[in-house]
Amino acid sequence: MTKPDWIAVDWGTTHARAWAMSGGDVLAEAPRGPGMGELARDAFEPALLAMIDGWDIAPATPVIACGMVGARQGWAEAGYRAVPATPLAAGMTRVACNDPRLDLRIVAGLSQAAPPDVMRGEETQIAGFLSLNADFDGAICLPGSHSKWVQISAGEVVSFRTMMTGELYAALSTHTVLRHSVGDGWDADAFAQAVSATLSRPEGLAATLFSIRASGLLGDQGPGQAAARLSGLLIGAELAAAKPYWLGLPVALIGDATLAGHYATALQTQGAHVIRTRAETLTLHGLTAAYRLMKG
Amino acid sequence: MTKPDWIAVDWGTTHARAWAMSGGDVLAEAPRGPGMGELARDAFEPALLAMIDGWDIAPATPVIACGMVGARQGWAEAGYRAVPATPLAAGMTRVACNDPRLDLRIVAGLSQAAPPDVMRGEETQIAGFLSLNADFDGAICLPGSHSKWVQISAGEVVSFRTMMTGELYAALSTHTVLRHSVGDGWDADAFAQAVSATLSRPEGLAATLFSIRASGLLGDQGPGQAAARLSGLLIGAELAAAKPYWLGLPVALIGDATLAGHYATALQTQGAHVIRTRAETLTLHGLTAAYRLMKG
Repeated sequence: MTKPDWIAVDWGTTHARAWAMSGGDVLAEAPRGPGMGELARDAFEPALLAMIDGWDIAPATPVIACGMVGARQGWAEAGYRAVPATPLAAGMTRVACNDPRLDLRIVAGLSQAAPPDVMRGEETQIAGFLSLNADFDGAICLPGSHSKWVQISAGEVVSFRTMMTGELYAALSTHTVLRHSVGDGWDADAFAQAVSATLSRPEGLAATLFSIRASGLLGDQGPGQAAARLSGLLIGAELAAAKPYWLGLPVALIGDATLAGHYATALQTQGAHVIRTRAETLTLHGLTAAYRLMKG
Repeated sequence: MTKPDWIAVDWGTTHARAWAMSGGDVLAEAPRGPGMGELARDAFEPALLAMIDGWDIAPATPVIACGMVGARQGWAEAGYRAVPATPLAAGMTRVACNDPRLDLRIVAGLSQAAPPDVMRGEETQIAGFLSLNADFDGAICLPGSHSKWVQISAGEVVSFRTMMTGELYAALSTHTVLRHSVGDGWDADAFAQAVSATLSRPEGLAATLFSIRASGLLGDQGPGQAAARLSGLLIGAELAAAKPYWLGLPVALIGDATLAGHYATALQTQGAHVIRTRAETLTLHGLTAAYRLMKG
């Protein structure tokens, strides 16, 4: 029977994952559970217990959780730690559970006063990356719905910015006139040209978005070409805004392989030095780092 | 009983309007009808007949229609005329009707090959504006879901660009994380600062959007302040892209009074010479100009 020393939990908006751990080793992974977005406050503990049902859990077993579980709408608000800061700290938000077997701690997010910004969940991935690359100095880019650009120096998060690129793509391709143009498929040349267009003329973005629709009406642009152009325009705009992060510094890309591939292509075209990582296990490495900090 | 010489129809995506006309005079306005978006092809004629029911219509009465009624998904596709061109032409797309009283003509849209762009409906408003301001040389801005920027010289549309600012605002404030931040109210200072931020640093747009969310989480930004900031960032991006249109030229603003007021404020801050117009009647003036062109 699975008998963990501690339990690692990655609890995001859309789903939850939990691992039975012995030090840094994974004994078992639980079936996925419901995301923070689906749960009322008092439903988190039962949801976790259902996920780990069948494990042999000793009283007061440490449970380290990260992600939106610590948001204001989550299980318990875990607050933010202001940068510059290490991505993790020994002190975490301790949450009382009804089941005496669970000794729950939630990792804090990071905040920045000026320009105002927040992250929650990514700090654990960053800690995981740094646990494998202790001497890394440069930028970390976590592309996604809310892409994060993070400046790392001497093991600390110095500054960061969030770009809503993925959410912007979804909103534009689903809820605007561009939904008639954008579809399945991809066109690498159209993507590269679009990235280059917004990077070289970021002031033109507002006008170029509708060109995707007009090109479809006036010419023979296909749905995959339109998708690649929209993605390229928005990633180009992200790279324009993130230029202070990637210009002349190595960039570690942490994310879904296809998406990170597009970012790598775009960045390499600009001469940036890109490091690809395997994103899947970084959160678990980060949670392990948090557990070790807590043990002291 | 209302007995029109001809019938003017403004048929957009969301609703239709029709007027019984005698030359340039309005005899009566019909109750509003359903928009193009709600109608299958064979439902347009019955919808129009229902709107004008009760009018005394002679056989082969000219009906001049503009707007999305002439789109591919409309009553009949009216095509596009390539710029540079006058906003209207005598030749229109004639559509056979089942009712012999209706002699229907649909106004063509305008197209631009490079950069690719299209308009449909706005050409009639522009013609209406030029029928009242024959010597106007400069830019016309029609703010809205799809804002149009139009360069006018010697009575012709020389070039134009479409910016999806209104639709972008709606998509961002409804279908992204910004929906938690944006709400009712307004803040003129926040608007002005946001316009200035994207106008002076258009490359920063991607990063500043999420700041609206972060400011709400970290500080005391209210929903109206967030709305004004989002609007300001997007209108600033539009003005950045449209700079060749408004820099050093008079700008005639045609649109909803509140929205056009925000654009006027933003443009005047940049030293642009702004002319406000009454948008309500321009389409009708344009349809009258089309009728007169047709009569020769």
